Amino acid sequence: MNAYQDLVKRHEEIALLQACNALLSWDQETNLPAKGVAYRAQQRAALSEKVHELKTSEDVTRWLDACQDDSDGEASANAQWWRHAYERARKIPASMVGEFEEVTSLGLAAWQEAREKSDFALFQPHLQKIVDFNRQMADLWGYEESPYDALLEEYERGATAKNLAVLFADLKGPLVELVEAAIAKSADQPPRSLQGDYPIEAQQAFNLEVCQALGFDLDAGRIDTAAHPFCSRLAPNDTRLTTRYDLSDFTSSLFGVLHETGHGLYEQGLPQDKHALPSGTSISLGIHESQSRLWENQIGRSRAFWEHWLPVAQKHFPSLTDWTPEDVTRAVNQAERTFIRVEADEVTYDLHILLRFELEKQLIEGTLTVADLPEAWNASFKNLTNLTVPDHAHGCLQDIHWSMGALGYFPTYSLGNLNAAQLHAAALEQTPGLSDDLAQGNYASLLHWLQTNVHAHGSQLLPDELMTRATGRSTDKTPYLEHLRERYIH
Amino acid sequence: MNAYQDLVKRHEEIALLQACNALLSWDQETNLPAKGVAYRAQQRAALSEKVHELKTSEDVTRWLDACQDDSDGEASANAQWWRHAYERARKIPASMVGEFEEVTSLGLAAWQEAREKSDFALFQPHLQKIVDFNRQMADLWGYEESPYDALLEEYERGATAKNLAVLFADLKGPLVELVEAAIAKSADQPPRSLQGDYPIEAQQAFNLEVCQALGFDLDAGRIDTAAHPFCSRLAPNDTRLTTRYDLSDFTSSLFGVLHETGHGLYEQGLPQDKHALPSGTSISLGIHESQSRLWENQIGRSRAFWEHWLPVAQKHFPSLTDWTPEDVTRAVNQAERTFIRVEADEVTYDLHILLRFELEKQLIEGTLTVADLPEAWNASFKNLTNLTVPDHAHGCLQDIHWSMGALGYFPTYSLGNLNAAQLHAAALEQTPGLSDDLAQGNYASLLHWLQTNVHAHGSQLLPDELMTRATGRSTDKTPYLEHLRERYIH
Repeated sequence: MNAYQDLVKRHEEIALLQACNALLSWDQETNLPAKGVAYRAQQRAALSEKVHELKTSEDVTRWLDACQDDSDGEASANAQWWRHAYERARKIPASMVGEFEEVTSLGLAAWQEAREKSDFALFQPHLQKIVDFNRQMADLWGYEESPYDALLEEYERGATAKNLAVLFADLKGPLVELVEAAIAKSADQPPRSLQGDYPIEAQQAFNLEVCQALGFDLDAGRIDTAAHPFCSRLAPNDTRLTTRYDLSDFTSSLFGVLHETGHGLYEQGLPQDKHALPSGTSISLGIHESQSRLWENQIGRSRAFWEHWLPVAQKHFPSLTDWTPEDVTRAVNQAERTFIRVEADEVTYDLHILLRFELEKQLIEGTLTVADLPEAWNASFKNLTNLTVPDHAHGCLQDIHWSMGALGYFPTYSLGNLNAAQLHAAALEQTPGLSDDLAQGNYASLLHWLQTNVHAHGSQLLPDELMTRATGRSTDKTPYLEHLRERYIH
Repeated sequence: MNAYQDLVKRHEEIALLQACNALLSWDQETNLPAKGVAYRAQQRAALSEKVHELKTSEDVTRWLDACQDDSDGEASANAQWWRHAYERARKIPASMVGEFEEVTSLGLAAWQEAREKSDFALFQPHLQKIVDFNRQMADLWGYEESPYDALLEEYERGATAKNLAVLFADLKGPLVELVEAAIAKSADQPPRSLQGDYPIEAQQAFNLEVCQALGFDLDAGRIDTAAHPFCSRLAPNDTRLTTRYDLSDFTSSLFGVLHETGHGLYEQGLPQDKHALPSGTSISLGIHESQSRLWENQIGRSRAFWEHWLPVAQKHFPSLTDWTPEDVTRAVNQAERTFIRVEADEVTYDLHILLRFELEKQLIEGTLTVADLPEAWNASFKNLTNLTVPDHAHGCLQDIHWSMGALGYFPTYSLGNLNAAQLHAAALEQTPGLSDDLAQGNYASLLHWLQTNVHAHGSQLLPDELMTRATGRSTDKTPYLEHLRERYIH
């Protein structure tokens, strides 16, 4: 056996344990009885430890050195990927990994209490430790311009603080103007209210029909209920979506399903037989989010979608009888200034991200102290939206990410939005008759385009390469702004 | 660390992997998408292999030798249990374990086809191999009187062919008479039919209420749907029951839940913190089945049960409005001669077991050939029930057990029935006011008696010791026959 085959075998062993952990985690969100949580945590930690051992053993380094010059393109890309990942991993001492886990698990608990009581002081010392740890790790990983780059690398390979700052600065001006106009228009023409009585079984039946029509293979996946919707590929041919139900508004579970179906189609579109290898694994959060947002927003909130699906929805929900596709489209595209990111509409959403990106970059670069964060948040929010944050639960304490130690994660949400619009526009341009297909509820040609241009590559193309090959250019603001303008202004 | 502590640590590691495998298996029965089955099989096999390695490594033998004379009672009982189990395991060469897995997996597939086509010839060569393998293993394990003893040991430590033959011979005469009388009485007073319209949600709500009232902790367990009902403790404080639903008869899912709740109460009654040790694990199938049958039959089919629960059932199922507790009790205790074991009522059930015990014992002892099995089955069935088996699907091909390689398993069903009646009688004798409690739907004192006399012992008492301490004597026919007479004749 040559070194590359040794590496493949090792990663199949790793993938097998990770698949166990993925099931343990999925089950924890969907089924686990309350008293089973403590042992489950032990179980997951023990498997993670085994995975860590398998990844960091010396033979892996030896094998990687030995297959330096492999000629096969895919094998060489996989080896490069591992080399990059393990070099990074080796820079962080094991003791620090353990400490960081403790810091973030305490941080998470403190954040939960702090948010509940809207009391930043309870979270401040924990956030301080988390920021310090992230800064230390950035220094160990190394970077060229900003320590924030080293953190970004974890979620979006190739992205830098500098590039993102340019991209987002470019976006900000037109977006703020657009928000203004969209809100004025929404206020001018208030939509009908969708509030009603939607039994859970009817919602499930409708969601399932839509999910299947988009191309999700339910013989290789399923939909369950969870408090916080997510998508997880547990193993090859086993991709599971979750959603949650609001009995007074069917669109809550539906858009949850559309979003997670987007993630799920990406996971199902990856070569399943390579699930243990970089070439069979998704490339980045910004690309993953582009898939979920494309199906949720470009498709699911379009007029064409509702022209096709309203008659079906009416069969499941008799109270929609006198609604028109125009009514529903307007109801699900209402622009409004709100405090909470996860409740934001499509047009205001990125303002929440721009704010977080700026602040976390400053925290890591040392130009903002943790103590000054709440004030900076509130000032920045006022500046972006003209709203006054009423309390920290509606401000800097609203998101879970920092408490879990994740700095550098937020920008991938906006990258996802930009990429979604850009990929959608490219698919329309490159696929004759696609508009007509979509209008008829036929999604096969769009899915095929995404499979070919995004999914099939696994991690073989970095995000920027992938976007450039698929759309002819790097991620930029233009298609996204056009999309928002089209939807919210015209 | 001393040797015993090393053993405990190793078994905690083993238990952790087994808990992963238990979840993989539970999920396979309840959730797994069809296309995920192939990888799941690989995953389970890989974990089983790791468990096998951890159990059979040389340090385990060394540790066991070193803690020969441990003075602590529980530690010494655990060490003895492991010694016994591993000595047995080491007698079977690894190659044979692998071969047996292959033979039984082919056997299972062949049996499924054979049963479908009611064609014994398709299964015969596979059964031949399975019997030969079992015989070979019995020879390797060793035995004093019958090779069947060595197989029994796997499911019911301490049981022997000779003892069981005496016990069952003793039971047979009175049971055959009882069946005669019970069937005559049932035919004389035909019960009302429970067939009706029972929506699944109503069944689930009623079952949940009953299950909780019996004392099953739903914060440490749950109920799901599966084609073949089972109970599995996945991990400490995580015991899962399953049942299946017949929309025209609510008692199908209910008695499934009652049965599995009995198993579940045993699992929950074991000391959860010792889940990795023999002292925290159930002792045998015959004792396990006693717990499921006691709650299903002694309790769930009693008049007192329906006096209490019919009014509750009527709230969930309006069609029961004009039923009396007497009506329901008679409907769920109808005696009838049938061909299929799993559909048999309480009074005829053991005839099916006596037949299987006799035949599988002869197969292993070499006094019956596989080729002669169908004829022997049909003759024996005619002799016991006076019914003529119409085809092998209703005869010797009906059960899965042999195809999976399990010979020596069947008698534990009858042991379960006998033990259930004997434990129930002892609990009534030893617990003042228990009858009144049960009549009022208060099951706490019965559960407490079972927890103290059965569950708490884990595997520290062998089945015969456990029965003797709890009831004053070894398993015998008297309480069971009294119970059946009381229920079916009086």
